[in-house]
Formats: sequence, structure tokens, C-alpha cells
Amino acid sequence: MHDTSPHIVALAGGVGGARMAAGLTQVWPGERLTVAVNIGDDFDHLGLRICPDLDTVVYTLAGVGDAARGWGLAGETYAAFEAMKRLGGPDWFLLGDKDLATHILRTDALRRGQSLTDFTAAMAASLGVGARILPVSDAPVATLLHTDEGLLAFQDYFVGRQAAPKVRSVVFEGAQNAQPSPQLLRALASGALQGVVICPSNPFVSVAPILAIPGVRAAIENSRGPKIAISPIIGGQAIKGPAAKMMDELGLERSAVGVAEYYRGLVDIFVLHETDADLCSRVSALGMKPLVADTILSSDAARAALARTIEAAL
Amino acid sequence: MHDTSPHIVALAGGVGGARMAAGLTQVWPGERLTVAVNIGDDFDHLGLRICPDLDTVVYTLAGVGDAARGWGLAGETYAAFEAMKRLGGPDWFLLGDKDLATHILRTDALRRGQSLTDFTAAMAASLGVGARILPVSDAPVATLLHTDEGLLAFQDYFVGRQAAPKVRSVVFEGAQNAQPSPQLLRALASGALQGVVICPSNPFVSVAPILAIPGVRAAIENSRGPKIAISPIIGGQAIKGPAAKMMDELGLERSAVGVAEYYRGLVDIFVLHETDADLCSRVSALGMKPLVADTILSSDAARAALARTIEAAL
Repeated sequence: MHDTSPHIVALAGGVGGARMAAGLTQVWPGERLTVAVNIGDDFDHLGLRICPDLDTVVYTLAGVGDAARGWGLAGETYAAFEAMKRLGGPDWFLLGDKDLATHILRTDALRRGQSLTDFTAAMAASLGVGARILPVSDAPVATLLHTDEGLLAFQDYFVGRQAAPKVRSVVFEGAQNAQPSPQLLRALASGALQGVVICPSNPFVSVAPILAIPGVRAAIENSRGPKIAISPIIGGQAIKGPAAKMMDELGLERSAVGVAEYYRGLVDIFVLHETDADLCSRVSALGMKPLVADTILSSDAARAALARTIEAAL
Repeated sequence: MHDTSPHIVALAGGVGGARMAAGLTQVWPGERLTVAVNIGDDFDHLGLRICPDLDTVVYTLAGVGDAARGWGLAGETYAAFEAMKRLGGPDWFLLGDKDLATHILRTDALRRGQSLTDFTAAMAASLGVGARILPVSDAPVATLLHTDEGLLAFQDYFVGRQAAPKVRSVVFEGAQNAQPSPQLLRALASGALQGVVICPSNPFVSVAPILAIPGVRAAIENSRGPKIAISPIIGGQAIKGPAAKMMDELGLERSAVGVAEYYRGLVDIFVLHETDADLCSRVSALGMKPLVADTILSSDAARAALARTIEAAL
């Protein structure tokens, strides 16, 4: 498929990545879309392997996600979670009943020796998802944050501490020894690749851990077609999550230009929200072609429209 | 507590054992009741450690059990189970959402090195259970059945095959090397022990695996006070489960007398249902004192009444 049909690769974290990927499926249906997903947020909780970004992407593309929250499942219930609290279990990480099914089956599959890639593919197929959703590696990689409160695992920082600590630097434990997804490398090396889309995910804790897997950044650089990034920062604010706050803490300019600078050398086309149209010349000065669009992906229509804008720019 | 207060030890499997134990708590409140529970049904499913009899006893004594079914939790939901089926997971073993909380926390606790005894005690305490509920051993013991369809693990036989295969013999894998519960041995050795009650559980797959743990049968034989068994067979039929069918298959008389014969040498007092009052002389001939009572434990009142009958016989 990848070698013959025109196709695209997207790099995605959680909510923003999933919403952009949902738009891209409108232009690149079925296996014409490959989504390389961040695994740095993955962690073990109560003995269960939890992969928040993979699940968010699968659920969103399957149309079973909680559209308002952007993560988790629509119509979710919390009977198991409430029962665990009653038994003295931890309550800091919310676990829905339907979501637990994913974690239980995945943990069991990994223990039996199935790869995360194969489990994710089977899960996506069960839910009717046509896109290829790939963990960037089958090896565990853990995003850790050096903060003013010490070294924190990602979920301890993001969920446990609600992203309150000040981030000094981010490391991706295990990344250097992780093998990149062979399917991803094949998709990136294909002569039918039309381009690579860096979704409007957090550059520092969603996209960076993808690029930190050995060979991935080089494979993107060497791939056919333009590399297009969509700014997750609009008017100096993050659409969701701590990206803007982190830019301050990491000493970067808290604006779409700060994001563009971060992607300098990798990205050819940089998509800004209409609000930030005045920043186009500064993006151009970084050697990227600026593209102004509606990047607030709160509706299916907006997601599809941005995907068509991207298609037109290829 | 055990060394000073008059107390009792009960041997229990699942539904029948839990119902009898619930009655015993009316006469022997708090830690005056120790329930030694069968672990031969315990198994790993989807990577979760499931202990059906322990859970049935804890849930029943906590008053949160599904009273009509006799197992599982009242007001249970199945969102996770349905979601697992949608993802291609196995559907032969029903898992409720609230029940999953128990399995997840237990599996995690055991992996962290907590004993099954300590987890069960903490679980029971969380749910307000005062009785001491003890797995007969912390070592895994697996009831296996040689059947006309080959060797089957207990849950494969009982749930997967609905107890349809003909049982030739029963073995308790791991029993010979299992250490008996030290708390159980202490309770049995206590000078304040008033007696031992063998609940109306399946003699062959619920009580036998308790007695198969090295030292347990001898500790009962050497303990103070009478040993009282309640027949799970009434009018030649089992109140619940395959006990009567198994008696045919194992070449035993399918009646309360057949059960009494099975417990010969261990039991002093044998409780028969009123329906079986005509069997008293045959029980006497086995060297046991027969006791006729209402042994259908479908109401709290009936359970408490039988407990008082047992108390009066001590």
C-alpha cells in the first residue's frame, strides 16, 4: 500500500494530534494515513500498561472518543474506579470502565509477547479504524521532567501535579536504545510519500519524544515531500495543556514563532492560526513557508478543512 | 483474640460457604469467626489473579454481594467486559466492573509482594468485614479435574464447560508444597476454639482442596471442640453446582449419606436437611451424631437460625 498509493505520515501526541489525524483521514483515508504516536507518556499503573496518546488517537479516529474532553471514551462509566477507591486503591489517575478494557487486554497481550505495534493495530482494526496507528517504537520510552520540584515521571507531573511544577528540561528515558518502528521507517522512505505532518501537539513532550527515537528525525529529513508543522500555540496560548507555560520555563519565546524556531531545520511549511497572521514574516525569516489557517480543531468540519489546506500546500 | 475469646473456624468454598459464614457471624461476631477459604478455584485470567471463593465470602460477609446469584456484587455493571468483547477479548468468564477493581488491586498487590492473606484482610477491612477471612494458603493451588474430555483446569470445567464433562478424579496441583495459613493453624490450635464447621460447600472441589494443604486436616483433627459438617446435598440434589452429579461420576452414593461417608473420621456432627431426616440412622452408623435442620440458607434468618443450631450442638 505505502509503496504505491500517495500517502502521508503524521506525528501525533494526544488530543491535538488525534484531532488533526481525524481531519487527515478525510483526505487520506485508510492506510494512506500513517500516524506515528508518542509513547513517552506511557506508564504502568496498578500493573496495567497505559498508553494515553495511542488510546486517544485510536479512540478519536474510531469515533468513540469523548469529543468534549478530547481523551477517553464517550459514555464512559467509572464503576471499577469507584470500587478501587473504596478498597483503598489510588485515585489520582482516572480510569474509565471501558478504557480499562483496553489497558487489561494490552497488558495481557504485551505479557504474552505481542508487540505494542501489533496490539495497537488489532485494537484499531476492532474499532474500525483504517489509518495505520504506530507507536514510534515497541520499546518503552519514558518522558521525565526535571522540574523545580525534582525529577518527575510524566504522569506524576501532568496528572498528579496538574503540570504545576516549573520544567527545567525534559529527557526521554530509554529513547536512545529504542528501535524505531520499521513500519514508520518504511512509510517515511516510500517514494509515494506526499509529506509529513507534525500535528499541533506539545512540541516538548509529545513531538520531541517521537523525534528522539534514533533514526526517526533523519528518516523524516530524508523523506519525500514537504514537512508541515501546525502550531499548537495560538495568540501566545496553548490550545490545551502546558505547552505555553513550558515555553516560558524553557526560555523560549511563548508564541507560534517560538514553536517554529524549535522546528527549524526540520519543517518546510509552518501553519499559524489566523490570529497570528502578523507573525508570518518572522516564520519566513526562519526559512519556512508560513501558512495561515483555522487551526482550532474543535469540529469535524474544521479538521477536514485544515487537512484540505495541508493537501493543497503539498 | 483467638487465644482468649471463644471462637470458631469454618471451612468454606464459594456460595454455600459464604452463606453459612454469614450466618455464623450472627453468633460469632468479629474475629470470633475465622473462615478458611478454598483457593483451588483461583486462576489467572487476562493477567489478573481471580480468587472466586475468597471474593464470594468477602462480598457476602460485607453485605455487598449479589444475594440472588450468591456470587459477584450487587448492582454490578459490565462496561469493561462488553468493551473487551468489542476488542476481541475472551467472553467466557464474566467480569463485572466493580469486581474488576478487586482483581486489579489484588494482582498489583501480589506483584508487589503482598501476600494473598494480607490483601484479603485489607480488602475485608475496607468493606467493613469483621470476620477473619483466610486463604488456606498463600501458595497457588490449582484444582484440576480428570474428565472424560481430558484434564481440565477448574474454571475451564466449571465456567467454560458448565460442569458438563464427567469427572473421573480431582487433583490439587501445588497443594503438597503449599504452606498452610499460620493464622489458620493458630486458630485451630487455640484452647478457646469451640469447634470447626465444614460449610455446605462442594466436598470434592471446595472442601477437599482445603483439607489437601499439608497439616490442615491434622490440625482440624487435633483441634478442640466438635467438627460439624452441613450436607450440601438435600434429597439427593445439590443446592447449587455439580456436587450431586460428581458423586455419581466418582462412584459415591448421591445423598447426604454419601457426603457423610466422605467426611468419615473427620466429622463428629453431621447436619442434614429436614427432607433427609430418614437418613439419620445411617449417619449414626458412620459414627457421627446426626442433626436435622433447615439447611437451605436463602435468607439471613435461615442462616442465623442454622448458626444458632450449630452453637447449641457444641
